[in-house]
Amino acid sequence: MDEFDYIRWVRRQIPSDPRVLIGPGDDCAALAPSVRPLLITTDLLTDGVDFVLNEVGGRAVGRKAMAVNLSDIAAMAGEPLAAVVGMVLPTDAGRTLAEELFHGLRAEAERFGVPIVGGDTNTWAGQLVVSVTLFGEATVRGAVRRSGAKPGDWIFVTGPCGGSILGRHLAPQPRIREALALHETVELHALIDVSDGLAADLNHILDESGCGAALVAEAIPIHADAVELAKRSGKAPLTHALGDGEDFELIFTVSAADGERLLKAPPVAGLAKIGACVERGLWLDEAGERRPLAPTGWVHQME
Amino acid sequence: MDEFDYIRWVRRQIPSDPRVLIGPGDDCAALAPSVRPLLITTDLLTDGVDFVLNEVGGRAVGRKAMAVNLSDIAAMAGEPLAAVVGMVLPTDAGRTLAEELFHGLRAEAERFGVPIVGGDTNTWAGQLVVSVTLFGEATVRGAVRRSGAKPGDWIFVTGPCGGSILGRHLAPQPRIREALALHETVELHALIDVSDGLAADLNHILDESGCGAALVAEAIPIHADAVELAKRSGKAPLTHALGDGEDFELIFTVSAADGERLLKAPPVAGLAKIGACVERGLWLDEAGERRPLAPTGWVHQME
Repeated sequence: MDEFDYIRWVRRQIPSDPRVLIGPGDDCAALAPSVRPLLITTDLLTDGVDFVLNEVGGRAVGRKAMAVNLSDIAAMAGEPLAAVVGMVLPTDAGRTLAEELFHGLRAEAERFGVPIVGGDTNTWAGQLVVSVTLFGEATVRGAVRRSGAKPGDWIFVTGPCGGSILGRHLAPQPRIREALALHETVELHALIDVSDGLAADLNHILDESGCGAALVAEAIPIHADAVELAKRSGKAPLTHALGDGEDFELIFTVSAADGERLLKAPPVAGLAKIGACVERGLWLDEAGERRPLAPTGWVHQME
Repeated sequence: MDEFDYIRWVRRQIPSDPRVLIGPGDDCAALAPSVRPLLITTDLLTDGVDFVLNEVGGRAVGRKAMAVNLSDIAAMAGEPLAAVVGMVLPTDAGRTLAEELFHGLRAEAERFGVPIVGGDTNTWAGQLVVSVTLFGEATVRGAVRRSGAKPGDWIFVTGPCGGSILGRHLAPQPRIREALALHETVELHALIDVSDGLAADLNHILDESGCGAALVAEAIPIHADAVELAKRSGKAPLTHALGDGEDFELIFTVSAADGERLLKAPPVAGLAKIGACVERGLWLDEAGERRPLAPTGWVHQME
C-alpha cells in the first residue's frame, strides 16, 4: 500500500462534518470560520519514550496520542474542534500498524466529537513517531491560561495522581467536560493539565503567574496506582503523586470565595482542594511543618 | 537545557503579532478569529529520508520543513497565517541542533510573515524528526482544490522541474505569491504543488477531477539540474523533470480562454503551458506520437 492508498482508506473512515469544508486528500484541509479564538496544540509521541509499541500495540498508541492533545485543550477550558495526524512508521511494520494507529486515534477523537481532517504518513528505518495537532475553540468565557494565579487563591486538582506508569498513562481521560463545567461555574484564574507531574505542572502555573504555592500533604489525592508503585519503589506514595506525571488531571486556582462554592456544590466529581497560593516559593505543609517542595517531574533533558 | 528553558528561549525569539492571542508557553496557542476558512496542512520530515542531517545541518532542515508546508498553502492559493513545530531530537545532539533548527524554521517562516506560535520538543535515542503544522486562510476567492480540472483545460507549471536532489530540494521556493497572483487573474480550476513529481502530482489532480491529460514533451520546462543529473544517471532529462519531485513548483489547470490570457500577459515569471486535459488517461505527446505516461514519482511504500 502506498501513501495515497492509505489516504483513500482514511477518507472512507471519516464521517462528514459541517465544520469541515475540505477533509483529507487535498494539499490542505479547510475548516469553516468561527467567531471564537482558535486554540492549537501539538504533541509528538515516540516509541521507547512515551510508549513501548511492542508491548502495547498501535491502537493504544493512537488513543494516547490523541488523548494527550485533548488534555491540552482541556487545560485551556476549550472545546475541541478537529485534528491532523502525522506518522512515521517503521518500514517493516506494514499497513496493519497504520490502520491500528488510525483506529486508536479515531476512537479517542470520536469520544469528543473531533474529526480527523488531514495528515501526513511516512515510513523510515527508525521507530514509530506519532504527531497530533489538535484545534479547539475558546468558549465565550475565553481561554484560561497558566498566568492568572494570585496569592490567596485556592488550588484544586480534579482527581488522584501518581503511578500512571502502571498503565493509566496509556489511557488518559482528557478532562474536557470537567474543564468546561468548572469554567461555567467559577472564574478559573489559572489552569494546566498534569503531564510532567503535579508539582512540576503547578510550578509552571507559579512561574507564569509570578506567585508561590503551599500544598497540604494530607490533602493531595493519591491514586491507588501510586500506593501500588510505592511498594515496589520504596518511595512514599505521596512522592509518586507529586512527581510521576501523565495523570492528565487538571490543576486550577480560584479565589477563596469560588473555592468555597466548589466545595459546597462541586460541578464535577473527584475535586480536591490541595493548597493555596502564596507570595513566592513552592512549599509542602506536612504534619504541621512547612518545607520546600522541589518541582520535580518528567523533564525531557537535552545535553 | 530542559524543555522548559528551550520554550523560554523560543518565546524570546518571536515578535508579537496582533493575530496571535496566545503564543508559546501555554498548553495551547490561540489565534484571533477570522471570517475566512482556515487552511491546515502538516508535513513531517525525517533524517535519512527527507534530508541527511550530518550533511546539511539543522538550519537547512528547519528551512525545508517550513518551506514544504508553505508550499501546501500555496497549492490551495491560500495566505499563510501561523505555524506550530514538533521536534524529536537525538539525545546526543544537544541545544545547538535545537537552536539551529529553530533559526532555519523561523527564517523561512519570516519570509512569508508567519509567526511560530507553539510546538513540542522531545528527545530520544533515534534520529531527528521535524513536524510542522501550518495554518493559512483562503482568500476571498476561496481555496483552490485538486478536483476542478475539466477536459479541454490547459495545464501550466510555474517553473522548470527535475534534478532537485542536487540541492534544490533543501531550499524550496514556496510559490505563495505566484499562487495568489494567479488566483486574482484567472479562474484556477485545479492546483497542486510538485512534491512527488510532475507526472505523479498531475495524476493526483486527474484522479480527483475524474479526467485525463496529455502533456507535450517539448513544452515541459526542464531544470538545469535535470540536465546535469541525466549525465550521471543515463536517463533522459525529461524523465527527471517528470519524475523526480520536490520541485515545489505549482501545476494548475484553467480554461483555454484563461490560458490564452496567461500566455499574453503572464502575472508571474516562469509560466509554461505543458499540455491539456482530456477525457481520460495520462499521455505524453512526443515527436508527433501519443504514448501512455506512467504517473511515477516519489511514493512512500508500506509493505
